[in-house]
Amino acid sequence: MTRLSLLRHACRGLRVSPSHQRRPAAPVPGLLAGRCAPAGPVRSRGDLLLLLLHHRGASTSSTRATPVAVDAAAETAYEKYASEVVESTKESLVALQRKDPALQPVLAIIQRDEDDVLLEVNRKMAGKIGLNVTQICLTKDCTEDEIADEVSKLNEDPRVHGVYLHLPPSLLTGRVLSTLAPEKDVDGMADLNMGRLVRGDVSEGFVPAAARAVMEVLERHGVSSEGKVVALVGGDGSVKVALRCLMERRGMVTLNGHKSSESFQKTVQQADAVVLFGAGQAEVPPTWVKPGAAVIHCTSVWTSDKHDAERMSQNGMAHLTAAYRMQNVVLGSCRWLQEQQYKAWSLRSLKLQPLTPVPSDIAISRAQAPKPVQQLAMEIGLLPSELEAYGRNKAKVRLSLLDRLQAEPDGNYVLVAGITPTPLGEGKSTVAIGLAQALSAHLKLNSFACLRQPSQGPTFGVKGGAAGGGYAQVIPMEEFNLHLTGDIHAITAANNLVAAAIDARMLHEATQTDKVSSFVRLGLDPSKLTWQRVVDTNDRFLRKITVGQASTEKGQARETGFDIAVASEIMAILALANGLEDMKVRLARMVVGTSHSGQPVTAEDLGVSGALAVLMKDAIKPTLMQTLEGTPVFVHAGPFANIAHGNSSVLADKLALKLVGRDGFVVTEAGFGADIGMEKFFNIKCRASGLRPSAVVLVATIRALKMHGGGPNNLSLVTGGCRSNLRKQIEIAHLFGVPVVVALNVFKTDTQAEIDQVCRLAKECGAFDAVPCHHWALGGRGSVDLARAVKEASSAPSDFQFLYSPEMPIVDKIRTIAQKVYGADDIALSPQAKEEIENYDRQGYSALPICMAKTHLSLSHMPDKKGAPTGFTLPIRTVRASIGAGFIYPLVGTMSTMPGLPTRPCFYDIDLDPVTEEITGLF
Amino acid sequence: MTRLSLLRHACRGLRVSPSHQRRPAAPVPGLLAGRCAPAGPVRSRGDLLLLLLHHRGASTSSTRATPVAVDAAAETAYEKYASEVVESTKESLVALQRKDPALQPVLAIIQRDEDDVLLEVNRKMAGKIGLNVTQICLTKDCTEDEIADEVSKLNEDPRVHGVYLHLPPSLLTGRVLSTLAPEKDVDGMADLNMGRLVRGDVSEGFVPAAARAVMEVLERHGVSSEGKVVALVGGDGSVKVALRCLMERRGMVTLNGHKSSESFQKTVQQADAVVLFGAGQAEVPPTWVKPGAAVIHCTSVWTSDKHDAERMSQNGMAHLTAAYRMQNVVLGSCRWLQEQQYKAWSLRSLKLQPLTPVPSDIAISRAQAPKPVQQLAMEIGLLPSELEAYGRNKAKVRLSLLDRLQAEPDGNYVLVAGITPTPLGEGKSTVAIGLAQALSAHLKLNSFACLRQPSQGPTFGVKGGAAGGGYAQVIPMEEFNLHLTGDIHAITAANNLVAAAIDARMLHEATQTDKVSSFVRLGLDPSKLTWQRVVDTNDRFLRKITVGQASTEKGQARETGFDIAVASEIMAILALANGLEDMKVRLARMVVGTSHSGQPVTAEDLGVSGALAVLMKDAIKPTLMQTLEGTPVFVHAGPFANIAHGNSSVLADKLALKLVGRDGFVVTEAGFGADIGMEKFFNIKCRASGLRPSAVVLVATIRALKMHGGGPNNLSLVTGGCRSNLRKQIEIAHLFGVPVVVALNVFKTDTQAEIDQVCRLAKECGAFDAVPCHHWALGGRGSVDLARAVKEASSAPSDFQFLYSPEMPIVDKIRTIAQKVYGADDIALSPQAKEEIENYDRQGYSALPICMAKTHLSLSHMPDKKGAPTGFTLPIRTVRASIGAGFIYPLVGTMSTMPGLPTRPCFYDIDLDPVTEEITGLF
Repeated sequence: MTRLSLLRHACRGLRVSPSHQRRPAAPVPGLLAGRCAPAGPVRSRGDLLLLLLHHRGASTSSTRATPVAVDAAAETAYEKYASEVVESTKESLVALQRKDPALQPVLAIIQRDEDDVLLEVNRKMAGKIGLNVTQICLTKDCTEDEIADEVSKLNEDPRVHGVYLHLPPSLLTGRVLSTLAPEKDVDGMADLNMGRLVRGDVSEGFVPAAARAVMEVLERHGVSSEGKVVALVGGDGSVKVALRCLMERRGMVTLNGHKSSESFQKTVQQADAVVLFGAGQAEVPPTWVKPGAAVIHCTSVWTSDKHDAERMSQNGMAHLTAAYRMQNVVLGSCRWLQEQQYKAWSLRSLKLQPLTPVPSDIAISRAQAPKPVQQLAMEIGLLPSELEAYGRNKAKVRLSLLDRLQAEPDGNYVLVAGITPTPLGEGKSTVAIGLAQALSAHLKLNSFACLRQPSQGPTFGVKGGAAGGGYAQVIPMEEFNLHLTGDIHAITAANNLVAAAIDARMLHEATQTDKVSSFVRLGLDPSKLTWQRVVDTNDRFLRKITVGQASTEKGQARETGFDIAVASEIMAILALANGLEDMKVRLARMVVGTSHSGQPVTAEDLGVSGALAVLMKDAIKPTLMQTLEGTPVFVHAGPFANIAHGNSSVLADKLALKLVGRDGFVVTEAGFGADIGMEKFFNIKCRASGLRPSAVVLVATIRALKMHGGGPNNLSLVTGGCRSNLRKQIEIAHLFGVPVVVALNVFKTDTQAEIDQVCRLAKECGAFDAVPCHHWALGGRGSVDLARAVKEASSAPSDFQFLYSPEMPIVDKIRTIAQKVYGADDIALSPQAKEEIENYDRQGYSALPICMAKTHLSLSHMPDKKGAPTGFTLPIRTVRASIGAGFIYPLVGTMSTMPGLPTRPCFYDIDLDPVTEEITGLF
Repeated sequence: MTRLSLLRHACRGLRVSPSHQRRPAAPVPGLLAGRCAPAGPVRSRGDLLLLLLHHRGASTSSTRATPVAVDAAAETAYEKYASEVVESTKESLVALQRKDPALQPVLAIIQRDEDDVLLEVNRKMAGKIGLNVTQICLTKDCTEDEIADEVSKLNEDPRVHGVYLHLPPSLLTGRVLSTLAPEKDVDGMADLNMGRLVRGDVSEGFVPAAARAVMEVLERHGVSSEGKVVALVGGDGSVKVALRCLMERRGMVTLNGHKSSESFQKTVQQADAVVLFGAGQAEVPPTWVKPGAAVIHCTSVWTSDKHDAERMSQNGMAHLTAAYRMQNVVLGSCRWLQEQQYKAWSLRSLKLQPLTPVPSDIAISRAQAPKPVQQLAMEIGLLPSELEAYGRNKAKVRLSLLDRLQAEPDGNYVLVAGITPTPLGEGKSTVAIGLAQALSAHLKLNSFACLRQPSQGPTFGVKGGAAGGGYAQVIPMEEFNLHLTGDIHAITAANNLVAAAIDARMLHEATQTDKVSSFVRLGLDPSKLTWQRVVDTNDRFLRKITVGQASTEKGQARETGFDIAVASEIMAILALANGLEDMKVRLARMVVGTSHSGQPVTAEDLGVSGALAVLMKDAIKPTLMQTLEGTPVFVHAGPFANIAHGNSSVLADKLALKLVGRDGFVVTEAGFGADIGMEKFFNIKCRASGLRPSAVVLVATIRALKMHGGGPNNLSLVTGGCRSNLRKQIEIAHLFGVPVVVALNVFKTDTQAEIDQVCRLAKECGAFDAVPCHHWALGGRGSVDLARAVKEASSAPSDFQFLYSPEMPIVDKIRTIAQKVYGADDIALSPQAKEEIENYDRQGYSALPICMAKTHLSLSHMPDKKGAPTGFTLPIRTVRASIGAGFIYPLVGTMSTMPGLPTRPCFYDIDLDPVTEEITGLF
């Protein structure tokens, strides 16, 4: 039986009076039925639910052609109507629960003193529909403060879908009503909801139940149509205003006044119906009323008079009102359910008016006012409860989002990688940001850029910012480049707590034989400690140091060193973790060294892993920011690209893939050239996350291609660069079965002939497409062609596969990468490396993926060999392991894990205006 | 001339028609005049302004006894009314500008296309009143998005006090209206404002100008009183609803319908006045209208028809409406001005239900749900623009507050200090928090606790948290004890950037003779470097280290060390700075070492001070949190209490003193015993801030008093402790002329006899009062007696004075402290100390105050000498300086600036539940 027929069925038993003319009642107006869908893009499943819920209102109008007389039997009729509302609401609830079996809507009642009879009517009505009720009974002398406190608690309680304030009007103060969350204000009393109703929009608010009940009766009486005259007598307040709005939207004539007014008495006589407000005793003399006119008592919600309450509870209107109140609770839970579901974006991009010449990065960033981060979050479908703002421009996003949108399909996953770069870098970050700007702001396709958080060290040292550049930037760039939301600081604290724990443990084990007897003796071998301290400063003097030289450390001095904070294994863990539990497990299994007996010693052995998880509990939430064009960006994690895998976090990508939805795009970046960053993205990050990429964007510049071709100044050199390095990097991507779009990051010195040549050759080399990009000078508009090509490539068939199986022996895995990716003939292991590999095999770590630590300046291990070198043997000097992060990292040559400051560091030029608080000199 | 007489004067010229009966018009109802004062406690000056602004409405009613006829001359009359509104509004504006000469209200108009005649009427009206107008002209095809964007910008522009959306109704969508900030919605169209009006509360919203204009005319016609019948014909929308609400609140009868409705035509004939809605052509046939009834055209705000616009602009109603719109703009700026002023608190304390036995600190903290920090901020009178939330429970407060409340008097300033403690501490923090809870939540006196941010090192090491304890805590305690808002991390980054800059500079100067020629050669003497690196971990192995041992550092290895982060001079600077500029100056003048030629080398010389200010720009803003009872707390800065001054920040105290207001209390804490923390609070912190304390709370425990008396178990030992250490510490406070209240922090092992004895003896020793405190077990309720005593003491006369003048020679300053505060016979300077002092004299640093670095476990330099030792000579081993912070610190014995981890550190017990995210084991 369809819903419509169910309702017809339910209507059949209606008792009708023949004394009224039979004419069809006007349809329930848009206000009540049609306009409940949100104004934005259509929400597929949610609409269904809402329509379902409102179906009754829209459908019944055509089935009840005969108005009911207001006679002694009216009360019985009202109860009949009420039972129809109950039936349809129950049906709606069942339908909702079919969608979400866990849904169990709760109506919370705040009341003063004990239950009265009216409250009983409501409780029973809730029971009939299958709603749970929770009652908060305040004392007789309760204050506005106490009520507001209780309301606040109910606002924050996700189990409660509606709040009914069964309180005397004197306690329904502005303070109390403005505290009540509008989405739980099922009586439509809060100012915001009343304003919505006045404007004629109930897509978010609620029609007060008493007003709906009166409209229902008027409709049944056939006096709800255009031109019908209804007098509203006495009372005031929101129900009356709401009722009048409903009537006038139908073109009815309303007469409003008080009984005491003589002039009003005359007008009442012209009314087709009279609605009486106020407590139980409200009446008008029969002589006032036109013969045959309906007289309806609008039951007020609260009375202190027991007798009145008794009378009202026996009035069928009380039942009908209660039924509609419960319908509003179900409507509230329907909206709540809808709110929990995926929402289409309503992104408002920021306008960009690029200047020529392009100003400095900080000047461009400062000239654009970012949207408040809460607004951005709302636009992309995040719930307020999923956001933790850090000031106005940044917010952490809670991982609970992954649970909420579990059933949603992921969007397209696009990796931005690069050809082998010059030492200046070829602009992968700007390409990634420009692409996201183009996709979101210009092609109107949902997109997210996922970026790494940069180390603060280089900010004050030598390299430019990592927030992009020109008109493709994350803003405010100074917040991106400085403390952000403290994740790197948290990593530093966690890393150094491990270090302090190691040295303190060794000292105590060495000097306090008796005291440490209660602990397992770890017997750490000082010569085999692998854990280093970290600091987020370019401090070269900490590369190699001796610690423990104070007399208090009793001669336990030893050599060690500091790395830059982003080189910490904890950073790699943050980037690879799939959730809080996974992160905790990885932190616990980090190996910090070896015991004298040759056993690996972990953070868990040190007893510090719980504390590490505590220190990292906020860092695990990605930080939301925006591009210059107001499109969303996640900034999260930034592990080193050689000793670690150089990719932003798995969690940021996962959150973003859910948020952009099936047709959206997540643009994520891998550090260094494709031979390093992309290879690790596939073999390490995708393995950890289970995610599969749809396309690779390979960034090239004429400058780098010329370098690979053999020098700086010739078209044939560009050709050489394309046919060597570019071709090889494309081939590497194809090893994994993923289509490649070449993004030529155009510099103003590039000639058109060079640009055309590169694009032509790139396609010859197997690229899906190749397009020049002008994002630096033009923002997203300059990357629209790239965005279109990426969209195409993402829908092309792809056949992703890993390069090696983790079960392969470590040596074979290394060899596979060296031969297939780098083009080496073979690898050569040092004796130390051989021994280390054997050790990992013995310790059971042989099934981990490989994270090669190799120069990014050549496909080979020799930085000066450009193009696509062949005929070389890759030397493996030593093999280390990040057991917590979950990879083995062979070192090809020496890797610096602590940058230095140049002779003239950037910090010279950085300054802060203490009055305007503006920063200067930051890139 | 008073305002009233001015208005009477203005009314004199009114043209009145004799055809109407002369009877006084009803007074303007409360809705329009009286209820504009906020519902909360009376705001002294703001009310004045609001009353002033509304005076006209209230006063004129009695002066215009004669209604005006609606005849051909009506239009002229309307313009007359308009000019009266203009006059009174102009007067109000002048009065506001007298309060704030900088006030220049701006009306922003968003329009589609060019000016129309109606817009011109508005612009001219603004000009007459003296309002500035800014026009945003959108194109003919402008979208909802563009309008919403412009509205957003105007919302955030503090110069704009009102926004007038002169747009077709189709563009006034829910989205546009909900974007508009309610406080700038001078046409009262936003849902929230409309809801407020319906509820009858315009203390925050606005009455739509068109509705006010109609009411004005009705009033002048004498048809605005109870029982008068008014027909509203045609139209819909907010103006009509608003108008009806206004009428019905006066007891008028309203008839509402459309011209086309036959049934309505009959009722219209009974109306005393007819109001026509809709564009210019709206008319009713004269036969409908009762003879003598007024017919009023309510001018709609927008029409696309030029002819209509022309007609409307000639209608006097357009002028009257424009005049009321401008009055709303002035009302808006009046409210803005009021908003800028001091606001009485509306603090809602959280209920506390203490359990016995008292649970663990973390369990107590977790059991209490803190208020959202935005709510707390609102309750204590902070503006949303002054808050930078960091998640739900913490927010940084902007220093602009100090400018805004510059003219406000400070509250009472109470220092919590202690007697010489046992190594376990005597609970100063809990007393401070308990006192603040008692003052705010129980005595309803505004109060703030200002606390130091604890180092993260001890959190994982040995000491308890610094968030208080038991039922006197800051919540959530884990956020307090962990990263907070990143200030210590920022200090670490800044401190270590200086260190890296020093070593890099020395390396480059030593190895790159040519490259550094462009810089001044600093010639730092490696043996005279005083700058250490810092880390916020208890890492004893970093106390003494050798850096620069890698081959890349070319043999420049040198010995140095790490301190705990809170020992950084930058922390002391943060604590003493009076603002951003002052902090920057102090950072620049930090001395990091001496050149070979004996000159001090500063951070400014290193070129790093701008970068330091950039790193510290957010750290300078204090962090707002709350106690278990929901009272406000500032957490800011936490310098070491021996090598630095051990007090929370000057800025937090200053912000808090403004916020609590004249009768409020700021409770701030000084580290260690009163001989150290209090002495430095007075001589260093108060000197830097210019603030003067009203009272000292001296915390004592029976346990510590017994220790000072000579042992653990006897009433006479308590007496001994009182007569020695307690007496001496009270005397020290009296040296500065400040009254002392002794707070006896009661432990459950204390006997009543002991408690009584201490309180009696404390008063004998000169304390203003002495009270036992039970905050740990009971929360604020346990400290109510203390709060009362502090209130009394603060109003007692006090005569603050410094202990020494800064111009005194360094040696004399040290001697003064040693003799007067510690009770030493004299001081003995080591030869090194003498030399150092001479050096400071030479370098011009002799006028700085003294920050003694002495053990806190005795008044003397000998930790085991308890009570009040005498007859000793204080040895001064060495004398150091924090030039940036601004003090000289003589070292009495050895001070550890890097704590170690104990054999069984706390981190063993700390854990995180990855599902609930709950922390366990944190105290």
